[in-house]
Amino acid sequence: MAVYTHVSDEQLTDFLNEYDLGQPTSFKGIAEGVENTNFLLQTQKGRFILTLYEKRVNRDDLPFFLSLIDHLASGGITCPVPVHNKAGDALTSCAGRPAALFTFLEGMSLRRPSAHHCGALGAAMAEFHKCGQGFEMRRSNSFSLEGMATFYHAIEGDITSIDRDLAPLIEAELEELTNLWPKDLPTGVIHADLFPDNVFFLGDRISGLIDFYFACTDYLSLDLAITINAWCFEPDISFNVTKASRLLAAYNEIRQISREEINSLPIISRAAALRFLLTRTHDWLLPDEGALVARKDPMEYLRKLKFHRTIDNPNAYGLPNTI
Amino acid sequence: MAVYTHVSDEQLTDFLNEYDLGQPTSFKGIAEGVENTNFLLQTQKGRFILTLYEKRVNRDDLPFFLSLIDHLASGGITCPVPVHNKAGDALTSCAGRPAALFTFLEGMSLRRPSAHHCGALGAAMAEFHKCGQGFEMRRSNSFSLEGMATFYHAIEGDITSIDRDLAPLIEAELEELTNLWPKDLPTGVIHADLFPDNVFFLGDRISGLIDFYFACTDYLSLDLAITINAWCFEPDISFNVTKASRLLAAYNEIRQISREEINSLPIISRAAALRFLLTRTHDWLLPDEGALVARKDPMEYLRKLKFHRTIDNPNAYGLPNTI
Repeated sequence: MAVYTHVSDEQLTDFLNEYDLGQPTSFKGIAEGVENTNFLLQTQKGRFILTLYEKRVNRDDLPFFLSLIDHLASGGITCPVPVHNKAGDALTSCAGRPAALFTFLEGMSLRRPSAHHCGALGAAMAEFHKCGQGFEMRRSNSFSLEGMATFYHAIEGDITSIDRDLAPLIEAELEELTNLWPKDLPTGVIHADLFPDNVFFLGDRISGLIDFYFACTDYLSLDLAITINAWCFEPDISFNVTKASRLLAAYNEIRQISREEINSLPIISRAAALRFLLTRTHDWLLPDEGALVARKDPMEYLRKLKFHRTIDNPNAYGLPNTI
Repeated sequence: MAVYTHVSDEQLTDFLNEYDLGQPTSFKGIAEGVENTNFLLQTQKGRFILTLYEKRVNRDDLPFFLSLIDHLASGGITCPVPVHNKAGDALTSCAGRPAALFTFLEGMSLRRPSAHHCGALGAAMAEFHKCGQGFEMRRSNSFSLEGMATFYHAIEGDITSIDRDLAPLIEAELEELTNLWPKDLPTGVIHADLFPDNVFFLGDRISGLIDFYFACTDYLSLDLAITINAWCFEPDISFNVTKASRLLAAYNEIRQISREEINSLPIISRAAALRFLLTRTHDWLLPDEGALVARKDPMEYLRKLKFHRTIDNPNAYGLPNTI
């Protein structure tokens, strides 16, 4: 949500010389994308988003992300589509940064999605997962249990200094999740960050998904858990079982959720909550001054984590009777 | 250059209910306008800029600014035009802030304008001044000599702590300018901030002017001085007389510059340099953390001020022989 890198008119001209898009007619930095700098670029040929990849994104991962988006777009998943330059490349550079140009996607993210919207999300996520089955590249999840443990140990000292109860809770959770972690669940490409911010709607219909820069290869049900956490709790962190039920039912109509996935949903949901508890705690303790993002309360995710610890029967998630 | 206020989809819907613009189809915060929050809003009827006025802008001044923009637009000056709501108001509110909606203006600002661009600017500024002669509202310049003295005294202590030579220099300059200040120069509405950021070009032609939030009633030649400072120095602060000559000649073709204006140009240019020396020094010492603006070196304007002190004959500004 910041403009980390400024692009001069000369740099933009140099960049556009590599494309067949005519002259620029408008160019504005936009507050979208936490990790990157994004510009809305209008040329004689249309409107585009220019993304400059900043240092929080690993350059080695860019071919995975861009190939994935190309794969999804050609598979009918609506998303901003990479525009390839005259040499055929999606990944180029601008103002000294790795860069990519995307088609402009209409639509707006919702602040308070309804149960209807949760159903639309479930269906779109299942289509994404089905399409991703044909994608051959792999990227490991930086926030696997092992990745979360590493991440935690890097900020353990800071955490202890603000909340002496939080550190032992996280440690116990990491240990318990490791012991209980399910094996061999259906695996594939997941979005891993399908918050309402990253889902565009036009009216009541999804117009597309954005921001694939946490996408990775992991259990598909981790995306279910991340979206249940992000879409199905009310502002007071009460669980809205109607929303979860709609999300799961719509998903299940397109990709059948297995019995093993259902049974492990409380565990997977705890891991999904822990992942955002950790990164939000990090961002709370060590805010990126340039990011201009309102810091999000990490405790929201602690409460969600605790909710999932109380679940002894996955029916509590409002499983529709089709599952 | 920041998004200070976030607008939820519900707040946007409430706002748009007051207009006849159909449903929103895209809404993005943009990095434009240092003082305000700006969004690029697309609806079924077109593209617009939604401006939320933050606390750095005095609410009492908003009717002046919006009436001025209406006046300029109806006088043929291309600029973002206020869109009036169903009740006929240009000034409304959104997300708890005073707000206004403007038509979208195509074009891009230039980082390094050429002499040709300086000529185009001179002509556009003269048209602005001519059109402004028919505008009846008045707003005093916050950065008059008196205003600058008040501003200086508020940051005098901080200035002294970083540069013990700067404070006496500013004081001496304020005193000398007060003694030498010309009387009764042609007066009217000036833009007062016509930096390259605020002038949009499409190719080599100006597509419009933006950001009228320093506009005020003062000597018209103060705008000449501000633009000479902002457009006619090279990055090493050497004065480009060709650029100034083109700017003055193009301006003079549309509004004749008087002999008194010419003779006082060194003094007015010193005041114009001092104004930005003061505000940049303020922003350097007390940066607005939310603003996400690269702090600009105040010393650039000290060097410009010193340049104008060396001028004993206004011919040094490259006066064209038409003046």
